[in-house]
This record gives sequence, C-alpha cells and structure tokens, in this order.
Amino acid sequence: IGSNDGNFKAAIGGRLQLDGQTNWNSHNLPNATGANTTNALADGTSLRRARLHAEGTFFKDYDYKFEYDFTRGPGTTAAGVTDAYIRWNALKPFALTVGQFKEPFSLEEATSNRFLTFIERNMAVNAFSDNPNAYRIGAMGSYSEQRWMAAGALMSESVGGSGLTCNAAGTCTNVNGATLYNTSSVNTNGNANRNNGSGNSSWDVTGRVAGRPWYNSETEFLHVGASGSYRTINNNYTGNSAFNNGGTLFAASIGNVDRTALLNTGNLTKGNKGAAGSYELDHYTRFGAESALVYGPFSMQGEYIRTGLQGNGYKDEVLEGYYGYGSYFLTGESRKYKASTGAWDRITPSRNFDMNGGWGAWEVAAGYDYLNLKDGTVNGGRAQTAKIGLNWYPNSHVRLMANYVHVLNIDTAPTASGTTVVNQPGARSQAFNNTNPDMLQFRAQVDF
Amino acid sequence: IGSNDGNFKAAIGGRLQLDGQTNWNSHNLPNATGANTTNALADGTSLRRARLHAEGTFFKDYDYKFEYDFTRGPGTTAAGVTDAYIRWNALKPFALTVGQFKEPFSLEEATSNRFLTFIERNMAVNAFSDNPNAYRIGAMGSYSEQRWMAAGALMSESVGGSGLTCNAAGTCTNVNGATLYNTSSVNTNGNANRNNGSGNSSWDVTGRVAGRPWYNSETEFLHVGASGSYRTINNNYTGNSAFNNGGTLFAASIGNVDRTALLNTGNLTKGNKGAAGSYELDHYTRFGAESALVYGPFSMQGEYIRTGLQGNGYKDEVLEGYYGYGSYFLTGESRKYKASTGAWDRITPSRNFDMNGGWGAWEVAAGYDYLNLKDGTVNGGRAQTAKIGLNWYPNSHVRLMANYVHVLNIDTAPTASGTTVVNQPGARSQAFNNTNPDMLQFRAQVDF
Amino acid sequence: IGSNDGNFKAAIGGRLQLDGQTNWNSHNLPNATGANTTNALADGTSLRRARLHAEGTFFKDYDYKFEYDFTRGPGTTAAGVTDAYIRWNALKPFALTVGQFKEPFSLEEATSNRFLTFIERNMAVNAFSDNPNAYRIGAMGSYSEQRWMAAGALMSESVGGSGLTCNAAGTCTNVNGATLYNTSSVNTNGNANRNNGSGNSSWDVTGRVAGRPWYNSETEFLHVGASGSYRTINNNYTGNSAFNNGGTLFAASIGNVDRTALLNTGNLTKGNKGAAGSYELDHYTRFGAESALVYGPFSMQGEYIRTGLQGNGYKDEVLEGYYGYGSYFLTGESRKYKASTGAWDRITPSRNFDMNGGWGAWEVAAGYDYLNLKDGTVNGGRAQTAKIGLNWYPNSHVRLMANYVHVLNIDTAPTASGTTVVNQPGARSQAFNNTNPDMLQFRAQVDF
Repeated sequence: IGSNDGNFKAAIGGRLQLDGQTNWNSHNLPNATGANTTNALADGTSLRRARLHAEGTFFKDYDYKFEYDFTRGPGTTAAGVTDAYIRWNALKPFALTVGQFKEPFSLEEATSNRFLTFIERNMAVNAFSDNPNAYRIGAMGSYSEQRWMAAGALMSESVGGSGLTCNAAGTCTNVNGATLYNTSSVNTNGNANRNNGSGNSSWDVTGRVAGRPWYNSETEFLHVGASGSYRTINNNYTGNSAFNNGGTLFAASIGNVDRTALLNTGNLTKGNKGAAGSYELDHYTRFGAESALVYGPFSMQGEYIRTGLQGNGYKDEVLEGYYGYGSYFLTGESRKYKASTGAWDRITPSRNFDMNGGWGAWEVAAGYDYLNLKDGTVNGGRAQTAKIGLNWYPNSHVRLMANYVHVLNIDTAPTASGTTVVNQPGARSQAFNNTNPDMLQFRAQVDF
Repeated sequence: IGSNDGNFKAAIGGRLQLDGQTNWNSHNLPNATGANTTNALADGTSLRRARLHAEGTFFKDYDYKFEYDFTRGPGTTAAGVTDAYIRWNALKPFALTVGQFKEPFSLEEATSNRFLTFIERNMAVNAFSDNPNAYRIGAMGSYSEQRWMAAGALMSESVGGSGLTCNAAGTCTNVNGATLYNTSSVNTNGNANRNNGSGNSSWDVTGRVAGRPWYNSETEFLHVGASGSYRTINNNYTGNSAFNNGGTLFAASIGNVDRTALLNTGNLTKGNKGAAGSYELDHYTRFGAESALVYGPFSMQGEYIRTGLQGNGYKDEVLEGYYGYGSYFLTGESRKYKASTGAWDRITPSRNFDMNGGWGAWEVAAGYDYLNLKDGTVNGGRAQTAKIGLNWYPNSHVRLMANYVHVLNIDTAPTASGTTVVNQPGARSQAFNNTNPDMLQFRAQVDF
Repeated sequence: IGSNDGNFKAAIGGRLQLDGQTNWNSHNLPNATGANTTNALADGTSLRRARLHAEGTFFKDYDYKFEYDFTRGPGTTAAGVTDAYIRWNALKPFALTVGQFKEPFSLEEATSNRFLTFIERNMAVNAFSDNPNAYRIGAMGSYSEQRWMAAGALMSESVGGSGLTCNAAGTCTNVNGATLYNTSSVNTNGNANRNNGSGNSSWDVTGRVAGRPWYNSETEFLHVGASGSYRTINNNYTGNSAFNNGGTLFAASIGNVDRTALLNTGNLTKGNKGAAGSYELDHYTRFGAESALVYGPFSMQGEYIRTGLQGNGYKDEVLEGYYGYGSYFLTGESRKYKASTGAWDRITPSRNFDMNGGWGAWEVAAGYDYLNLKDGTVNGGRAQTAKIGLNWYPNSHVRLMANYVHVLNIDTAPTASGTTVVNQPGARSQAFNNTNPDMLQFRAQVDF
C-alpha cells in the first residue's frame, strides 16, 4: 500500500491463536484446603494471542514496525506493545535497530510463535527469555547473510505498565487480583509511568551468533548457534531500607490456556536491604547453545540454557534447562529457514487443502524438555515433560495444532526444615509434587 | 487491498458512536443518605463505542475478522475483543466458523448496533444476551440462503480479563472502583489469564432459525425466527467451601451514557457450597421468538425471551421480557435485510444530504419494552419503557439519532420481610421504585 | 486507499516516540526517610507515545479520524483514545466538528507533539491544557483561510476510564498503585463507565483566534493569537456531605521518562461540602496570548497563560506561566506553518540524509520557561527552566532530538505554619526545594 507522499510502503497484518486445553490426572492431586482454590488445572478455551501490526519501509533505507497484542502482552503483561522499532538498512548486510524489539537470544525465542513446532515454547526458553520479557527497549547492531548472522544489543526494560502489584514477599497480582508468576524485571510502574521511586531502568547486554556450517541446500543443512547475556536488576528500597519494588523471578508455565506456573522461584530479592537473611539479586548471566538439522522432511532441534545468579545472598547459583525434539513432514515439505534472523520461517504446503484432493501439509513431532530451578538457596522446583504433536497446515496462513504433554518427575517439594532458602514453592506448586499431569492442547491459528 | 503474496484481500474499518444523555424527574428520587452518592442519573456525553477491525478473505474459501472495542468491550468489560474468528466457506451455503463471535440468538442481538432502530437494545435482549456477553469462543455451523438461515454453536466463555473484582456477595467492581452490573459469566480471571482457581470454562449450546415465509420482494416480506440456548455456569469454591468466584447475574441498563443497571438480580450464586440458605446457579435455558414485517417504508418488529434458572436453591424460576415497535421512513426508504445473518443491514438514503436540496433519509419510530426479573426467590425488579425515536441518515455511513425514553411502572421494592430471596435490589435500585425517569438520548455515529 | 463502495478514502498511520532520560544533581537531594522511596529522578528509557490512527474522507464533505495511544493516553491516562471525530466541510472555509478532539487553546497545544521544537511542552501549557486533558468530547465551529483562523467549541469531559482512584485528600493512584498527578477533571469513573454517583459531566467553552498580521511569504511572517476558556468542575459528595470524587488539580512534569510532577497543587476540592476550612473549586477561567516570528531559518515563539480559580474558599487566585524560545536551522530550512490550525507543521529537509553527502536538516534551539502555582491559599510550587536543544531530521518522517534542561529557582517550600492553604507540596516535592535538577533528554521519533 503506497502512502500519500509516495515515499512510504505500509502494511497491516495480524495473528489470531485460539487455544483449548484439557487436563488429566487431576485426581492424583490433593484437595485444596482452607481458603485455597482448587489445585486442579482448569480446562477451557482462550484467545492465546490476538495481535495487529503496522509495518513499512520508507525512503528505501528505513523500516518500522509497531505491533500490539490485545490479549496477552509480551512477558507476563495482560496486553501490550511487542515490537515498536525503526531499523536503518543503508549499510547492508549491516543493520541498526532502535526501539523495542526482541532480544537476540535463543533459537526458539528468535522464532515467531506463529512458526513454533509445538504450541508452547520449551520450559527453559519460557523461563529464561520469554517470561522475563524478550521484548525490550534498546539499540541493536546486526549482520546477516545467507549462512551466518550475528547480533548484539544494549537493552533496557520493556515499555508498558505490567499491570502487576507486587508485595515485598515477591507475590505479584494483576488488576483482577489473580496471582501472576513473574515481574518481568519490569517494576510495577512500568516504563510508561516511571517516576522517582521506580528506580533507574535495569539494562542488559545480549548477543547471539548463528550459522549453517554444513549447507547443501535450503532443505539440507546444519544450524548451530550460541547466545550470551548479562542483565542487571532494578531493586528499590524505601528510606528505612524495606524492599519496595523491583527484583525478578524465574518461572515456567506448561499449559496454553491455564498458564499456572508449576515451577516458580518467587522474587529473588527479599527482605530489608543488607539485613541478615535478606537476598538481593544484583545481576544474572545467561548462556545458551543451540543446534538444528534439516534433512528434507525431517528435522531435529535442541538447546541448552543456563542462568547464573549474583548478588547479596547468592553464590553463583545456576538454574538450567534443555530440550530436544524431532519433526517429520508426512507430506514431504521441509522446515523453512530465515537467514536474516537465524530462525524458522513460514511453512508453505506443497499443495493447499481443497475439496479436490489437496491435503495441505501434515507434520508429526516428538520432544523432551527439562528445567531445574533448584540450586543452593534457590528452590523453584524441577520438572521434565515428554510431548508429541500433530500439525495440519491447510495452507500457508492457517494452522491447526494438537499436542499431548506428559509431565514427568515434577519435584516441587519444600526444602528440608532448618535450611535457609530464598523462597519455598507455594502451597499450589507443592500440591503438584510427584504428580504426573497430562494435558491435551489445541490451537487454531490464522495470520494475515 | 491486496496483500504481498496476492492471495489475501484485507480491509480495515471501524465505528464511532458519540452519545449524549439528559435526564428528568430526578427530583422524584429520594435524596441519597449516609455514604451513598447521589441517586440521580448523570447527564453527560460519552464515546459509546470506538471499534476498529481488520477483516479479509484468503485462498478464496477462508474469511477472518478481528475487531477490538477501545472504549467498551463486549458484555460489561471496559474494553476488549469482540470478533476474532476464521470462517471456512468452501461448502456454500454451509459455513464453519471457529473463534470468538456473536452467539446465534435473537433478531435484535444478531443486528449490528450500527443498524439498530433505537439507540440501545431493548431490555430483554440487553439482560439475556448482550450483558452476559454475546461474543463467545467456540465453533458454529451455519446455513443460509435468500429466504432461510439456521445456525448452531457450541460455545465457551469470552476471551479477555473482565477487569472485574467480585466479592462473594455478588458485588462486582471494575478497576476504577465503580460497581458494575454483571459478571458476564466470565469469572474475574477472564479467559486470557485462566489459572487453577479459575475453574473449567463454562459452555453453552445455542441455535437460531429464521426465515421469510412471506416474501414478495426485498421491501415487502415477513420475518419469523426462534432461538434456544442451554448454558452452564462456572462456580468456584475454596477448600473450606466458601464461594470464591464465578456465578452470573442478569441486569438491564436503560441509559446510553449513564449505564446504571436499574434492574439487577445480583449474583445468583451465593453462600457456602451446600450450606442452608445458599444458592448455586448450575445452568440456565433461554428461549426466544421473534417476528418482523417490512412493507415499503413501514416496518414492525417484536421479540419475546424467557430464561429458566436451575441449580441448588432454584425451582425453574423464569425471568422474561418482550418488546415491540414500529418504524416509518418519511423519505420512502425500506429497512434493509441481510439474509446471511437473518438480521437488519445498512440503510442507504434515496438521496444523500447536500446543500442542493438533498435531505438524506428520515425515520420515525415508537416502541414499548418490558422486563421482569422477579420470580420465586429471585428479586431483580421489573420495569416497562415507552420510547419514540427520530433518525437522520445524511448518507449511508453517518447517522444522527434522538430517543425519548419514559420508564413506567418500575418496581424495585424489596421483598416482604420473612421471605427468602437470593438478593434484594440494592439501595440505589430501590430509590427508583415507582419513580418515572425520563431520558433524552442522542447519538452521532460514523462507520467506515 | 479506496473502500469497497468507492465513496471512501481511508488511511492508516501512526507515531512512535522512543525516549531516554539521564539526571544530574540528584546528590543535592536529601535522602528519603521512613516509608518514602528515593527522591532522585529515575534514569531510563520509555516509549513516550505509540499511536495508531485511521482517518479518511467520504462523500467528499465528511472527514473522520480515530486515534488511540497504546502507551500513554491524553491527559494523564495510561492509554486511551485521543481523536475520535467526524467533521463536516461542505461550507468551506467553515467546518463543523463533532466528537472527541483537541480543545482550541494555545499555539503549543495546537501543534502536534510530532512537530514540537523541544521534547516536552513548556510547563504552562503542560499544566493548564495538556494535563487537564486537551482532548474532550464536544462540538466545534471553525473558520480558516491562509492568514486567519478562528475556532470556538462547547466541550465536555474526555472519554475513557482514567484508571485513577482518588481519595478525598486529592491523592490519585493508577491501577499499579503509583501516585499520579492529575485527575484531568475526569472523575474516576471516566465517561465510558458513567453511572449515578459520577455526577453530571463538567463542561467548558473554549475558543482561539490566530493569524498572521505580517505576511511576506511562507518563510517570513509574524503569528499572533489569543485563547480563552471557561470550565466548570464536577464535584461529587455523598449523602452525608463527604467529598467523594471529582475536582481537579494543576501539575507540571519536566522529565520525558520520569514524569514525576515537581509542581502540583493537589486536588483543589477538599473537605466536607460547605464545612469550615473546606474548598470546592466551582469553575476556572483560562486566558492565553501567543506570538511567533519566522524569518527564514530563524524563528521565535512565546506564550503567556493565566488561570483564575473560583468557588467556595477561593478568591480568584491566579496561577500563571510563560515561556519563550528561539530556533535556527543550520541547514537553511524554515519552520512550516499550517494555516488551518494556526500551528506548526512537518519539517521537510532540503536534502535527505544519505551516504552520498546528504545531511538532512539540523536545528538548534534555546528557551526559558516559568510556572507559578502559588497564589493565595494555593501552594503548588514555582519553578523556572532553561533549556537547549539539538534536532536532526534525516528525512521528513524520522527525527532524533536531544535536550539539556536546567531547573532554576524551584520553590516547593511548605507555607508558613498558621497559614490556611488547600494543599502543601508533598514530601516528594518538598525534597526538590532549592535544588537545581539537570536532565539530558533524548528522543527517536518515526511517524508514518
């Protein structure tokens, strides 16, 4: 679409993801007691994402994109801005991006949620990049050509009121009074309502390098990559040293409709500043390694991510996770690679579904996933999941997905009494200890 | 507008409704006492609806629509998603719709608020379909041709945080602390933030059949139709049996700016689970009958809707309402019918308004409306309204409306003491008992 | 973009403003005490505005515009509708506008924030027009030709829940619990959720006349203008005369990321209705005078605004402010004037920035700004600022800005004890008394 002054190209687009979730094994859960609500995960339907964006190019060298999610924002916000940036492309293959955009970290995070193999991202990516809010304000330099890409960014907190109210004990509730699982390291004022009392924005340096060292064609190649990040935490205390706002936590959700965080460290900053038994997370470092193989209709992918914690009360505790999975297109298509972001792209079926014998594309996948949020004084629990998936692509812009997820070896037991820890798993999380929840997840997706 | 890959057609549109309201007879109201604010309805102006949508067709057989209301969402939410669906049209005249869309129930509900004869929907439609949120997530099969249509849907709760906090007594407040009148059978977590404690989504089966048994031309025909619905309610209790969240209520607003619910049952779930004197609405059934006649510039329309309540403490109490009205185009146009939805469509003036003698279209209308929310143990009040309207259509996309509404026989008296009821009308509602509020309502509307 | 029925022209556009702020001299501030958070202004980044709009023309004589700000709404709301209007242009050069739009008051307010010389508006404009919310619902008649324009409007409150909860002491907090600085004379229910208890909408009559008495060419002219406004205040009391909601306050923010209001009168309605020592602001009158000179690449601009307060407890107290600044384009461009609104318009560089020696446009500016919110019983503080700015326009739609702001003579001392005042500056504001905060502000802006 050309603009009034002829120098602009603009487009409007969006995505809708309609989800369903059914749960089993809830009967193994203990009954809720006292003022607690039921422990069982909820069955139901939801609009997982409903996004619109405007994007365009002008004066040849400038791109912009503005995207808003009307149901769930980035990180753990109720609704909010995802992308909002300007990019300058005059020195290709180099580019400079300024604004709010996704941090360059992890293959699965770099891949749009429209093109993921499973309905939800794996636990380690969810806990260490997605929930702390991968969309951040900053500036990024990047380089990309057909076989290699590199990107480095200096980033600050995300825009937007998180809608969360957190108390000093690390419990955060949203505007509906529901307890949420993550402060996104965005303090409760959000960057759009920052005032004195909000503290200075935290910041991070994050980079990723990825490439295809073995490359036969776009349907036969090996992808490898590595990411690293250093991030400071914004902790704010009152005049009498009481913790007031800020801090961060790591948590993982497994369901797509019921987003209860089964694993959750609670806020890692806690207690009066400098007091005995207090904790103050100062910064954390993340490191990730990734690899993927595409060989015709078959593909494999795996990642490992570890996060080290530093600050008052911490001795480089390490939280970590990994996953691996394989996928196969029954109808012969290959996973599509986007060299500029070093991530996956849109699948186009060899033949669209129609009433004259067209089948669209059919994909099957199986994977394993592990996350450990227990180390030293940190006890956020530990779990594994095994999952299988079936995806149907009637055409390039519609996708129907079904996932069966089985949770294994979930350990949300409290630490033995007498041991000092930052937080224990809450009553809700403890109820899931040693249960094996099963979930059937569905998604109908259209993007335009 | 064609898309980049040539397979898409997309369009952006929206609607703005700017409203005003002036009230009389407030001097008959008793003065507020104690910590209550004034009983009088407020005069003022408002943006009643401000919606944008993106819609389109791709690969010929697929439609999508995504619409957001930026001032008031569907049901009683502050702002929210209305339509968000994909439709598959390959087997015309059959269609399959998946996503969030309007339930197939009632002629007046099926008609877009852009094309209503009066500014607000009649009380029975408002109480039984509009306020409980006509936009729900689900799947619908439909059939339509020139003279008949039928649709059946399996639906669940609406998407989106309702922004409401409800207490166990059934009082719900929005984020501004204002008391709202309906939980929309959406629990306070909303579907976008569902967690364990939210309970499983409620669901309903709803269907509508409508047609034109007498059909002479598009300006001379008789419309008849019937709707039916069965809906379960999501009630959630804590470990010690206290009511925690969920339930539903029925309420009706008459004003377009001051949306105070004069009639209101309060939450129909109340008290500890299974305790003496507790109520738990399990499900309700709705039935509606509708008819309309178009004869040149003259038209008539009427509907009857009844809702039966079942659950612990209920004995099939019946809440019901009906309305009837006539309309006449002074400038000779006819009401326009849309066969695919069995509802009313856009009016196009014979001649647009201009400075050379074009008048646009002028329409006068008069109607009567009745709602009874009192039966058995339920006391939500009872009222009638008589109203007249004048509409001016300068062209097909702009409309100016004026309505005069007189409320008759409003009965919001408390039940005689000693009788057991779920809820009494609140102090605010009781103040209106036997008063006859008059309202002058205005609207300027543009849709594009 | 043409519409389906060929009678429409529509366009989508938007703006992104990415801001940064760094503060000095915080070490002169006293340390926070007790439960107060730090006094120092926060360093950080923010998305200052992220707006999308739809606008168009149809049937030749009708314009419409709908704009939404996704990060910060108009006035002090968290996010909200800015423009939402229909305009009828058949009797050019006269026009009639109905809906929500900006009040016709002040040269700097009439200028889009995309085209301001400095990053933030001057304090008097911020306190008397911007924060009380310049976007209001109403009707406006206007006249404009090349050298003169006049506009008069009858307006009511803005649309949209303000998201604020205010207590009777005049302290307002947003949904995140952060204290905000202004009720925008929108009561806490907002116009979209008005009910009985909200009171009747307040209203105002506002007008502006501006022109170019000396006019040589579009690059050599003198602009002069005057504005006036009378506005009533909506104050609501309970049955026992306690102040419940409404009122208004005047406040000014200087930072672009940390929007703490250094100057703040607090709510000017306070105490039980009619009680001794109570205050009830009934209405206020504003008057503004403005002038600007463009002479080639050089321009100058100044304004004076005064506001008089009337009501129970007030004796025509006068709050006032003024500013003046000069700007020079190093690359030879002139400031662009838009005759229809009597305000500034988009700068187009003589030559766009490119890698072959194009510099874009470069502008330097320096200014002085004064605001006095102290008079009689009102003590909201007093301050001056001096500032310099550097703007780079690589092309007509991208702008990078840097401002250095020095605050002078800030007086937020409490009134001597024994004197009766409506409100004292809060502990936070008092901490800034006689400090000289310095700020470096940045902005990257794209509009499309």
